[in-house]
Amino acid sequence: MSILLNGNIITPINNSVKEAMEPFEGKALNLKSLGKENQKALKAYKEAIDKIYRTIEAKDEDSIILTSSASEAASQVFMSMYLQYILTGRKNSVIISARASIAEIKLARFLESQGCRVYRIPATIDGTLDVELLKEYLNSKTALVSVPLVDEESGVIQPIEEISAACALQGVPLFCDASGAIGKIPVSVARDEVTFMSFDGSAIGAPKDIAALYIRKDAPEIMPLVFGCDSEQGGLRAEIKDIAKVIGFAKALESAIDALDFDIDDLRDLRDDLETELLKMDNVYSLAPWALRTPDRIIMAFGGVHASMLLERLAQKGVEAYSFATFDNRNFERQSLIDIANLDSGLKHTVVGFSLSLSNTKEEIEEAAKIIKETVSEIRENFSSDLCKESK
Amino acid sequence: MSILLNGNIITPINNSVKEAMEPFEGKALNLKSLGKENQKALKAYKEAIDKIYRTIEAKDEDSIILTSSASEAASQVFMSMYLQYILTGRKNSVIISARASIAEIKLARFLESQGCRVYRIPATIDGTLDVELLKEYLNSKTALVSVPLVDEESGVIQPIEEISAACALQGVPLFCDASGAIGKIPVSVARDEVTFMSFDGSAIGAPKDIAALYIRKDAPEIMPLVFGCDSEQGGLRAEIKDIAKVIGFAKALESAIDALDFDIDDLRDLRDDLETELLKMDNVYSLAPWALRTPDRIIMAFGGVHASMLLERLAQKGVEAYSFATFDNRNFERQSLIDIANLDSGLKHTVVGFSLSLSNTKEEIEEAAKIIKETVSEIRENFSSDLCKESK
Repeated sequence: MSILLNGNIITPINNSVKEAMEPFEGKALNLKSLGKENQKALKAYKEAIDKIYRTIEAKDEDSIILTSSASEAASQVFMSMYLQYILTGRKNSVIISARASIAEIKLARFLESQGCRVYRIPATIDGTLDVELLKEYLNSKTALVSVPLVDEESGVIQPIEEISAACALQGVPLFCDASGAIGKIPVSVARDEVTFMSFDGSAIGAPKDIAALYIRKDAPEIMPLVFGCDSEQGGLRAEIKDIAKVIGFAKALESAIDALDFDIDDLRDLRDDLETELLKMDNVYSLAPWALRTPDRIIMAFGGVHASMLLERLAQKGVEAYSFATFDNRNFERQSLIDIANLDSGLKHTVVGFSLSLSNTKEEIEEAAKIIKETVSEIRENFSSDLCKESK
Repeated sequence: MSILLNGNIITPINNSVKEAMEPFEGKALNLKSLGKENQKALKAYKEAIDKIYRTIEAKDEDSIILTSSASEAASQVFMSMYLQYILTGRKNSVIISARASIAEIKLARFLESQGCRVYRIPATIDGTLDVELLKEYLNSKTALVSVPLVDEESGVIQPIEEISAACALQGVPLFCDASGAIGKIPVSVARDEVTFMSFDGSAIGAPKDIAALYIRKDAPEIMPLVFGCDSEQGGLRAEIKDIAKVIGFAKALESAIDALDFDIDDLRDLRDDLETELLKMDNVYSLAPWALRTPDRIIMAFGGVHASMLLERLAQKGVEAYSFATFDNRNFERQSLIDIANLDSGLKHTVVGFSLSLSNTKEEIEEAAKIIKETVSEIRENFSSDLCKESK
């Protein structure tokens, strides 16, 4: 069995989620049918939707639609703003974070290709969005501000209340992907006052390929992205047919929120143990402030160690970590964590992350620490590259 | 257990598909990882994609991307044509069938709201698209023709080779949803010469919420609809994360194609037995020619019997049928089968369909025939409505 330290990217389905899904799995369910089994499924479906509302503290008058991913939710929000506000000349710009997700980066590029202005707001030295700079670019012609609640690479929690206050002042809608936040920190659309919020099931023990898009009652009009038979989705998205998946998603959200009350502290302790161990090595840098990171994350530069090689060797030894370093300097003009932390640029290719989840045991983490340290040393001994020299 | 006669809408997952999925289900798989289990998943994923290519006789140089539904595939094709050809003024119209799916109807309406011309080509008396009329509307400014391979309500097979020849003559791309055809009749993009084709897993014993979009090599440029991390999807759609689902989908397609060689004849016989039984009733009309229908389908008008009531009572007795009659005269300007067949318009609300699948047994079908006949009589006796009088 592998030691999974890429829980921010993907997690196995939780056992409690499997149990909740089991009565509905693999069946030919049709929510419009009045047959007994289908009526049972409809009841469970409605309870699941209610559960999703409660999870993020949404109001009954707000809308929540189910999508196949947070990327789909982002695409729907960006494209709606484009088609209804930018294309019609009512608005002319969008603002994203210079630390945006791949979906946001690609959507922003599409908008640019259509003549829309895109402003990319960098992070300050602590890894949080520069809100003062954001305010300078915000105006009545801004169609959308999009900032993830948690930085997907570093796990740094963004000042979303400040950002939403700045947006509200100009009447600009705010889209916030909370996929990295759900189950790690409290998430509340009531408190954060976002206009749109997405959250994906992939990283919380839910089945894959399901997510939700929250739409505040007074949000600008959203149009469908996936057109089709949409009676269960308020006219905004073709129906999701896999009822078991919807039920599993809601159960996973509930469990993730419940975990915030106690389990999450154990997770943070385990994470801290691993980080302390790894920082005992030379030429290793933690890239995000402890107090600002979600409790599952470690993000580090391993001087002289190419991230892709470290990932590969760790995977072969049964430890799954993650890295965005391979993206950064190719097609994706994303502000790098190394630049943010003001470190030597030679470290850019050495950034690797570890994201713990509730299923990780103390034994696993001790074993992982050993393997990571050993692998870093091994690579440093065998590959005394230019990269290595540069970063010394 | 219910008797499922709505296999065109949804089917349970086949046992062979479950078996194929099992080794990959519920796990945290990451196709980019070099870990052993992930590499095994990557191999199975690639085999699944190959299998999908072979299923529809696509060439290596063509593209196939995975989507969450055929509705998503249709949305991607329509929106790409809109954004790249209609919005730029290079094209100015689209042509759909007057028997289009809900997704196509809604997409067409969206295009109309943006100033695009939409032509809706009716079906002739046998239920097939009027190709001569199509030819009159086709011209060099047509952005897209969209015709499903099989009529979703009646099961009538459309003359797609003729349609594609007419489109090719004008250099117009043809989008064809083959979801109702796969596993019922041979489907080949080589023979049918379509530009785009979609096929959904919902009706072939696959897991739900997965479909594929075929894109011929020389097709007009398609853009992403769901933007995101798309390295496994040729840059055209955010990745599908549920690897088990992809493997199950490919297996279901393979099984559906294999069934064409022998099982499908038994299915046709069973279907014919049921139809013969039902036609023994008075005031019952078969609405599509036997020779043109896929072997799973029966579509009938039951004079004096409101479709929604029949569906409801059948479901309560454990028989799941389907009906589009409740849609037709409300929001959806779809040409009705009753008009096509030149029958009394009072029959419009009485149209119910039955779609058999390979899991249906002879005993089930005999039982279903009994229940349907009994329920039709019951409704006729108890509800001598205006509708009933009208249709006599």
